[in-house]
Order: sequence, then structure tokens, then C-alpha cells
Amino acid sequence: MSASDEEVSARAARVKVIAFDVDGVATDGRLFYGKDGCELHAFHARDGLGLVRAREAGIVLAAISGRRSPNVDARLTELRVAHIHQGIHDKLGCLRGIVDGIDGVSLDDVCYVGDDVNDLACLEHVGLACAPHDAVADVIARVHWVSSRDGGHGVLRDVVELVLRAQQRWVVG
Amino acid sequence: MSASDEEVSARAARVKVIAFDVDGVATDGRLFYGKDGCELHAFHARDGLGLVRAREAGIVLAAISGRRSPNVDARLTELRVAHIHQGIHDKLGCLRGIVDGIDGVSLDDVCYVGDDVNDLACLEHVGLACAPHDAVADVIARVHWVSSRDGGHGVLRDVVELVLRAQQRWVVG
Amino acid sequence: MSASDEEVSARAARVKVIAFDVDGVATDGRLFYGKDGCELHAFHARDGLGLVRAREAGIVLAAISGRRSPNVDARLTELRVAHIHQGIHDKLGCLRGIVDGIDGVSLDDVCYVGDDVNDLACLEHVGLACAPHDAVADVIARVHWVSSRDGGHGVLRDVVELVLRAQQRWVVG
Amino acid sequence: MSASDEEVSARAARVKVIAFDVDGVATDGRLFYGKDGCELHAFHARDGLGLVRAREAGIVLAAISGRRSPNVDARLTELRVAHIHQGIHDKLGCLRGIVDGIDGVSLDDVCYVGDDVNDLACLEHVGLACAPHDAVADVIARVHWVSSRDGGHGVLRDVVELVLRAQQRWVVG
Repeated sequence: MSASDEEVSARAARVKVIAFDVDGVATDGRLFYGKDGCELHAFHARDGLGLVRAREAGIVLAAISGRRSPNVDARLTELRVAHIHQGIHDKLGCLRGIVDGIDGVSLDDVCYVGDDVNDLACLEHVGLACAPHDAVADVIARVHWVSSRDGGHGVLRDVVELVLRAQQRWVVG
Repeated sequence: MSASDEEVSARAARVKVIAFDVDGVATDGRLFYGKDGCELHAFHARDGLGLVRAREAGIVLAAISGRRSPNVDARLTELRVAHIHQGIHDKLGCLRGIVDGIDGVSLDDVCYVGDDVNDLACLEHVGLACAPHDAVADVIARVHWVSSRDGGHGVLRDVVELVLRAQQRWVVG
Repeated sequence: MSASDEEVSARAARVKVIAFDVDGVATDGRLFYGKDGCELHAFHARDGLGLVRAREAGIVLAAISGRRSPNVDARLTELRVAHIHQGIHDKLGCLRGIVDGIDGVSLDDVCYVGDDVNDLACLEHVGLACAPHDAVADVIARVHWVSSRDGGHGVLRDVVELVLRAQQRWVVG
Repeated sequence: MSASDEEVSARAARVKVIAFDVDGVATDGRLFYGKDGCELHAFHARDGLGLVRAREAGIVLAAISGRRSPNVDARLTELRVAHIHQGIHDKLGCLRGIVDGIDGVSLDDVCYVGDDVNDLACLEHVGLACAPHDAVADVIARVHWVSSRDGGHGVLRDVVELVLRAQQRWVVG
């Protein structure tokens, strides 16, 4: 049950932190395995543009992944994502820890983007819960906003646009 | 001819083993070739989540592939799939061998997921036959349940959810 | 303008050679470039199954590519495609050469699968012209049969099934 | 708001330069990261055919990318794209520089293909502005022509066909 445009916009207007799952959100979920393990992750250039704009606008970025991969470190470090947490089972605990470390920010000021049931605890506790178009049914049913794009195809960029537009800080061009 | 929801649920309720083809089911079927042969297979993070949950719930996992690849070994070993059989021409014979080795389990307790005609023998002999959305027509026509997702895009995760829900053991969150 | 089912079936019934373009037909057209050039091509497991079945049924297989890649050699050699021609500008001349070398076979006995305008000469001279679903408009307009699948997603497998069914030699299972 | 077929054709008829963004246009936007950074970009064979035809017809080709990658150099150099500019923040300034260096050409003679807001300055100043089907909404709303194909799936080939057809120089076959 997505929220109304007005509610989404009101929720987006107060976002100070964008936190997101990695596999299936920042990537298309694909894990490219060679004989020594997972060799490649597929990120998307449009998400890079979005995350850079969010950071430049002062939004705090945080990635919380249940898996662990140096490929993810390479990409997210390049994009200067401030908080990169991998191998996390208790994602909500991790998110609370991040939020507690930022003055004047509560979970109501957080936008979280996730695609599967291990993201639900975070999604249910933040101010703005978002999902890619190909998220699982239980996630789609519980978020405020569903992107028209699948994971790894620009969903993070569209979330950034949603947030910055609501804050009248999105620059077209 | 998919079965009714009630029949699928009844069949899923008794599943103790989930067996699956690899290429086109656990992967999207793509084989990434470099000059020395197949270098990469594309698995999906959501299938990983599903298979881990199945294993933790005591479901026995088995992969039966007509091809052979160390990439597949790397991924399925990481996920601790109990039975990994590659280079198999007689898939039904292989499946019977696996089932015979487990006390109190018959083919009626097996869920098999396949996408092409070399999976039909298995699909026709198990309690619950499933296919990804992009399986070939002969397979779609003969299974009990067709996932809304293509191979390599979370079909195994959705099969696990189907089975554990029918057994009232699926945890949302 | 695809032909009627009856005409396609009649044309398929006499096919003794299946010839095909590589990029966009046997692969999804993607060329994965690293700093030293094209490192990977994406083939599909279902096409492998189809090509093996065609060969076992005595159909002669031929690949004719405008480009040149050792990745393509690796995959098609593994599948024991009899004729592998790369870097070909005059595809129809190449195809005529192949056909001339096989006793009792003319272009009317050839099925050709192509996706772009450099395949049109071949497509217009063979007994059965086929295209993947995502071929360019000029090709779609001129072939007898269009697969429901995109290039690199099993179109060759489906062509093999079409041909062997028309010859009552397709085995389900 | 796409332009009418007549207007698009008139604009295409005078194109002497085709300039394009790389990620999400010449590629599908995917950035394949390993532990040392971005290892692969996915180009498409059909775009290669189109760009070669454009060059052979005397159209000047130019790539302008906000990012920087040796993978892009490898592919575009192979295709002999005359102007390859990477790491560009001021894309319109870069495009003006290219155009100024070609006798008798103005921005009205340029076709530009882009997918995201950092392409808008170029798109708004050229004679023919084009976008892939999966471009962001702000781009779709401002171009003259939207391809039926997504970025990295032949959009550049289709742009070349559009331009050469309007100039009655497209050869079918």
C-alpha cells in the first residue's frame, strides 16, 4: 500500500539520511561468480549521479548489506558513501547506530530503500520507506513509495530526485 | 496447466527436499564466455536469501545440472547446498539416488524447479513441479506452479517462500 | 510479414543446415569491454541444449559473424558447431561456400537466423528465415518466423525445436 | 514531448555530427565492479554496426562522458569514434569545442543522445535531441525523438538509421 503523493512528499521533505540495501537495490541483485567466488557486482551509472547529488546536497548516505564483498566497497567508497556496513544481520540495529551518531536526526528523518524481507524491520521504522519495482511482494505491500525502476537500474537516483524535489533542491540540468 | 492454489499449497505442505536445475533457474541461463571458456555465471542475491532460509528450516537442498562448472560449485558450496550434482544426463536417476539416501522421503516429498525439456522427467515425478516464468512451453505446460519471475531473478526464493508458507514456517521480516 | 504456420512448417521440414549470426542471436548482443578490449560474450544454456540436439539429429550447424572474437570460438567449438566463420563481410558468399561443400544441399534447405541488416542477404536467400524478437525492423519485416525470445535468450533453441518438430524428430523430455 | 515525424525527419536531414553520452546510452548503464574498481562496461554489437555506418557516411562521431574509463576508450577507439571526451562536467562546453573545430558546422547540425539530467544542456542546444527509452523523465520530456530501445540495446544504431534515412543514405542490406 503506497502512500499518497502528498504524504510521500511530506515524508521526503524531512529526509536527512538516505540508507539503502545493496544487492537488488544499488545492484540488480546479480552476483557474477567465477571459480573463486563472486567476482563482479553490477551497479548503475544513474545511481551514481543520484548519490553524488544527494551527498553534495548534504544528505548523509548509508549502505547496509547482509552480504560482504570488496566489489561493493570499491564502488561505494568511490561514491564517497559515508557509512558502508556489510555482513549485517541486524540491519535495524545498524541503522539505529548510524542515526544515533548524527546530531538532531531520528529514524523519522531517514529514507530507507530495500527489496526483500530482511529489509522490513528498517522499512517499518523509518520516515520514508521505498522499494524498487521488482522487490518482493511483502516489501511492496509495506513501503510508502515504489520506484518505476527495478533494482540496479536507477532506483536510488529516483529516490534522491524524490527527496530533493520535495525539499525544492533538485536541479534539472 | 498450473494447479489450483489449494492443490499447490497441499503439495507444498509436504515438501522436505527442494531440488533444482542450475542454468536458467538458479542463474538467468547466461554463460559468460572469455577466450578460455565460461568465466562467469550470474546468480541472484534473493535466491541466496531463500535457499539459506530453506536450509535453516531443515529443507534438504539439491542442485542437478546437465553442465559442469566450478563457478556453480563456488556459489552453491557457499550457500551450503547439501547435494551438488553436475554433468548429469539422467537427472531423474540422480534425483532418485538423492531421495533414496534420505530416510522417510519419497519423490512425493520433493519440489523440483526446472526450465527446459531435460528437466521434464524430474518435473513429472515429483510432488511439486515448478518453473520460472521464462521456461520453455513444454515445461510451462506440465508444472504445478509457475513463478512470476524469470530464471536467475529470484524464482528459487519464491519457491522457498511458497513451500515454507504452506508449512506455516515463513517468517516475514 | 511472417509466414503462416503451415508455410513455416513446410519450410522447416526440409531444413538440413541451421546457420546463424552470433552477436544479437547466439548472444544478447552485449559486448563486455575491459581495458584490453572485449573480454566476455553472454551465451545462453538453452541455446546450447538446442544446438546439441540439432547436431545429434544430423543438422549441420554454421555460425557466420561479422566480428571476430576468441570468446565466440571458445563457446561454439565446445558446442561442436561444424562451421565457425568470423570477420565475414560477405555473409551470403560465406553461406554459399558452406552449402556448396555439402552434397545434396541447396540454400532452400538452409535455415538462417539473423537480427540486423547485414544478415538480410542471407535471410532473403534461404528456405527458412528467422529472427529474434528484438531484431531490427527491417529484419522483422522480411523473415518467415520471429521467435518470442530476444537474442541470447534461447532463440536458437526455439529455432531448433521448430525445425525438428516439423521433421517429427523433436523429443519432449 | 517528442516532435512530429516530419519535424524529426527535417532535423535529421541536416545532421553532420552525432554526439552521445556513454553510460546509459552507448552502454546499458551498468558498471561491473570487481574489488579493484569498474572492470567491465556492456556495449552492444548493433550500436557498433550503426556507428561504423555513420562514420562511413561521413558523419562525425563524438562521445562525451561524465565518467572516465579505459573500457570506454577501448571500445570507442576500436569503432574509430573521432572525438572521445571523458571526465567532462561541462558537456555543452565540450560539445561547443568539438563543433567549433569543424568547418561549416553549428549546433543545429548536431544530433545528441543522452539519458540523464547532466545531458540536458546539450540536448536543449542541438538540432536533434534523442533519448533511449529508459531515459529519466526530465530527458524524455525535452527531446525530439525517443528510441523504442533502452540504452545499450541499440539506441545509437537506431539514431544512425533515423539520420541516414532522412538523408536518403541508409542502405538496407
